[in-house]
Amino acid sequence: MLTLYYARDTISLATHIVLEEVGASYSMVRIDFGKTEQRSPEYLKINPKGRMPALITDRGILTETPAMLVYVAQAFGRPELVLMDDPFAFAQVQANNAYLCSSLHINHAHRMRGPRWVDAGDQAAIAAMQRHVPVSVGANYELIEHDMLKGPWVMGERYTICDAYLFTLAQWLETDGVDPKRIPKVMDHRRRMSERATVKKAIAQEFA
Amino acid sequence: MLTLYYARDTISLATHIVLEEVGASYSMVRIDFGKTEQRSPEYLKINPKGRMPALITDRGILTETPAMLVYVAQAFGRPELVLMDDPFAFAQVQANNAYLCSSLHINHAHRMRGPRWVDAGDQAAIAAMQRHVPVSVGANYELIEHDMLKGPWVMGERYTICDAYLFTLAQWLETDGVDPKRIPKVMDHRRRMSERATVKKAIAQEFA
Repeated sequence: MLTLYYARDTISLATHIVLEEVGASYSMVRIDFGKTEQRSPEYLKINPKGRMPALITDRGILTETPAMLVYVAQAFGRPELVLMDDPFAFAQVQANNAYLCSSLHINHAHRMRGPRWVDAGDQAAIAAMQRHVPVSVGANYELIEHDMLKGPWVMGERYTICDAYLFTLAQWLETDGVDPKRIPKVMDHRRRMSERATVKKAIAQEFA
Repeated sequence: MLTLYYARDTISLATHIVLEEVGASYSMVRIDFGKTEQRSPEYLKINPKGRMPALITDRGILTETPAMLVYVAQAFGRPELVLMDDPFAFAQVQANNAYLCSSLHINHAHRMRGPRWVDAGDQAAIAAMQRHVPVSVGANYELIEHDMLKGPWVMGERYTICDAYLFTLAQWLETDGVDPKRIPKVMDHRRRMSERATVKKAIAQEFA
C-alpha cells in the first residue's frame, strides 16, 4: 500500500495521475502550503528536503517527481508507460522529464520561491526574478511546442508519464505570463489531458 | 558508435566517466564555452537547448545528464550501474540524480548563469543571486552529506552512475563557497573517485 503526500496546486498531481493510470491502491495525505506544513518537523522526518511530493512505499520513502513517475509505472508492471524496454525511447522519456523538472519547473519557481536563490529580504532581486518568468518559462514552452511534444502525446502515439508531467506544469502557464496563442499544441494537449478520466479523478480527489 | 559533445569543466564529464566505465567506443567533439560555441547555429541544430552535453547515437540525439547516464548503462548491458532490476533501488538512484540535476546543479548555476533568471542588464539582481550561492549550494551539500551519500558510494556498497554525477558537481564546491570541512564524507568520496582509472582517463582526455 502506497501513501502519497501531496499539496494542492503543486507538482504532486503528476504522480497522482500516474497512480490512477496504473490502478494503484494508495492513500493520500494532504500537506497545506498555506500553513507551511512542508517545513513542519513531522514532514521533514518524511522528506528532509521539505518539498512535495513524497511517496511512502513498503521499502521506504521516495521523492523527486522524475524518479517517482518511473517507479510507479515499473512497480505496477506498466513499462509501456515509460517505454522502458527500449533504451533509446526510455532515454527520450527521461530527457523530457529532466527538462520539465530542471528547466520548466525551476524557471516557474522563480515567480513564487525567490528566496531559494537570493536573500529573503532582497525584495528588488525577488521582483527582478518574477519579472523574468514570462521570458524564461515562455522559452521553455516554445521548445516544448517545437521540439518535445510530438503529438498527439509527448512521445507521439504512445501515452507516457511525460504527459502527466507536462499537463501538471501546464496548469500554471497563464499565471507565469505565457501567451497560450504561441503554443497551440501544448494547449491542445492540456485540453485532451483534462478530459481523461484518470486526470479528472485525481484533481477531484485533491480538492475534495 | 557514439559521439559525445562536451565542454571542459561542465557536467558533460559525468557522462564521459560512465562511457569509460562501460567500456564504450565513442568519439568526442569539444565545444568551447569561451567562444560561446554552445549557441552557434551548428550546435543548436544538434541540441536546440544550447546546453551541454549531447550524445549522438545511431537512433538520434540525446540530451540531459540524468537520461544519458541511465542510457549509457542500459544500452551497454550494465544495469547494475543503475540498479535497474530493482524498481525501488532504481528509483532511489533516479531521485539522487534528479536532486543533483534540479537542486544542486541549478543552485550552482546561479553563480555564473544569472541571466537565465533575470534581465541580463540587472547587475544588482545578478550579484544578489551570486551572493546566495554559498547558502543554497551549502544546504544541498549538507543534505547530500547526511541523507544521500550512504558510503562508501552514494548508493552504499554498489558503485553507480550517481557517483560519477556527484563527483562532477563536487569539482565546483570550493568556488561555490562551500566549506569542505562541513562535508567530510563528500570530500572523501571526491578523493576516492579522483583515483579511479576511468575518471583519470576521462579528465585527461578533456584537457588533452
